[in-house]
Amino acid sequence: MTLDCPVPMPEGDRVLLAHGEGLRLTRGLIRDLLLPAFDNRFLRPLADAAVLPPIDGEPVMTTDTYVVTPLFFPGGDIGSLAVHGTVNDLTACGAVPLYLSVALILEEGLPLPTLRRVVESVAVAAAGCGVCVVTGDTKVVPRGAVDQLFVSVTGLGRRRGRVRLGSERVRPGDRVVVTGTLGDHGVAVLSAREQLDFAGALRNDSAALHALVGGLWDTGIDVHFLRDPTRGGVAAVLHELTEAAAVSVEIESAAVPLSDGVRGASELLGLDPLFIANEGKMVVVIAPGDEVPTLECLRRHPLGRDAAVIGTVTAGRPPEVRVRSALGALRALDDPRGAPLPRIC
Amino acid sequence: MTLDCPVPMPEGDRVLLAHGEGLRLTRGLIRDLLLPAFDNRFLRPLADAAVLPPIDGEPVMTTDTYVVTPLFFPGGDIGSLAVHGTVNDLTACGAVPLYLSVALILEEGLPLPTLRRVVESVAVAAAGCGVCVVTGDTKVVPRGAVDQLFVSVTGLGRRRGRVRLGSERVRPGDRVVVTGTLGDHGVAVLSAREQLDFAGALRNDSAALHALVGGLWDTGIDVHFLRDPTRGGVAAVLHELTEAAAVSVEIESAAVPLSDGVRGASELLGLDPLFIANEGKMVVVIAPGDEVPTLECLRRHPLGRDAAVIGTVTAGRPPEVRVRSALGALRALDDPRGAPLPRIC
Repeated sequence: MTLDCPVPMPEGDRVLLAHGEGLRLTRGLIRDLLLPAFDNRFLRPLADAAVLPPIDGEPVMTTDTYVVTPLFFPGGDIGSLAVHGTVNDLTACGAVPLYLSVALILEEGLPLPTLRRVVESVAVAAAGCGVCVVTGDTKVVPRGAVDQLFVSVTGLGRRRGRVRLGSERVRPGDRVVVTGTLGDHGVAVLSAREQLDFAGALRNDSAALHALVGGLWDTGIDVHFLRDPTRGGVAAVLHELTEAAAVSVEIESAAVPLSDGVRGASELLGLDPLFIANEGKMVVVIAPGDEVPTLECLRRHPLGRDAAVIGTVTAGRPPEVRVRSALGALRALDDPRGAPLPRIC
Repeated sequence: MTLDCPVPMPEGDRVLLAHGEGLRLTRGLIRDLLLPAFDNRFLRPLADAAVLPPIDGEPVMTTDTYVVTPLFFPGGDIGSLAVHGTVNDLTACGAVPLYLSVALILEEGLPLPTLRRVVESVAVAAAGCGVCVVTGDTKVVPRGAVDQLFVSVTGLGRRRGRVRLGSERVRPGDRVVVTGTLGDHGVAVLSAREQLDFAGALRNDSAALHALVGGLWDTGIDVHFLRDPTRGGVAAVLHELTEAAAVSVEIESAAVPLSDGVRGASELLGLDPLFIANEGKMVVVIAPGDEVPTLECLRRHPLGRDAAVIGTVTAGRPPEVRVRSALGALRALDDPRGAPLPRIC
């Protein structure tokens, strides 16, 4: 070999179309990269599907695709985000998360170390939540047909027997609780994407909440409604809830917990934290009177130490979400067509 | 409005970023397009996850992403393909398909009628297989970040109690059966993509095989191994099988069933049908002596009328797939790095 022409990048360093075509390179990718990261007895047969032990009770199933850009951001990445988001969707439906499937869509030319980093992040996050990746799929599409790497994750869980959750259980007088500061995920991704520097004050909030919420069940708190405020933020959750339950909600602006970083970034950029995506927070609606044990329970867990009651369900018609400012003025919270930050999860 | 400037396309005709942002347009898309197509009692609450009835036995879970181009091809489209492929993966693991989740990734600007056509195709195919779409997700990414529309489908099924399948059950002497002609799906997609005209002789083979394979169980045939020969075709299935079971396989070239269209296209384009993707065929490995009842059972079903024994498992070492030509010469079937046709499923 001479150096007269540019030294070619060894093909082993990049994802090739052939990695997705079901033949030798696909088997190599599965055996050398995916199986070692996820290894468990359900995945190991590498069949078309995973055969699982019987589930005692009602299975709960959820799916989400993650298209966040950039792939890596302060405190997280697309891999951990995908696991946390899926675990949180199961948790929000009163389920104990059990199994995940992971479908990767890769762009030809993606550096293999990038893929490896994402896969290892999925594996670490899954192990941290006590769930197994039992099946999956990998597709490679030509350059330009996808932006780097997307991942679809499906979660399968078991519903906790005694838990009853739903918008139909929400009544005027109920209290709206959030388990922590709002907007951290969206602002952290935005800062990484736009290379904004908020003096290191931003931390991503991506986290799995099964243990935090599990504490509520163990304490016997009668949660009426639970939802993971991701895309569209708390505003989207409350607009959906008010429509579905034919109630209104009044938020106390001063009660909304915000980190200094999100407060500063929101003021600077003109963003409303109620619309910004979270990935590691839960909206919890409880009966009036349950505030104290709920907050005590949540605040005992590191992921719930900033938990706060932020508002109240009312009988107001038509269904509306309203925000009371620190000075007491009430305004309707916009129900916008789209969110200010695309590709946040 | 004047016509001095170009008439803008009404926004209602195209997918917008806001359709994926979790707010008003997302809720509209779900309520007006997705829910009417898929409607069922598990999906209707539109929660973060679907709560399902207890499954009697072992749950079986599979995931596949579909990135086929073009989206519509002779006899099928990405929607029906996604349902059939998922149902077939469950079937290949001895499961009765029950539920699907559908994750859509849409490119900003995709015509809404295209999305509607794909969604309706998913719904029709799912109903045809007796399965429900119980949960899903829709993401929209900016123009250029994905090629039109990808879909990830996860299937959940119930394993048939008495069925035992696996490469460890495959023994020298076993016979290799295919349930119909090979290569139809791949060649049909290729002809649509390249606008080749094979005198209308191509028909896509996309089909769900749960009923065809169910017949084998009902007849009491002791199937040893079952696999859906999609990406990489029958060659990929047999290479995987020989590696996993430490056996060899000998294929009789003259016994491989081919439609006239695939035979002609393969000769013209220099493709080997053993490497071409199918979506509606199954590789079935059975004990020697079970050929007659197996073929009788398969041929009674319209999807199995071209079923044929194409080869035999041997003890040859090292594990190898060999093809005997019509004139009797044996050659090793290549184990290539990649398939000749990318983005076929």
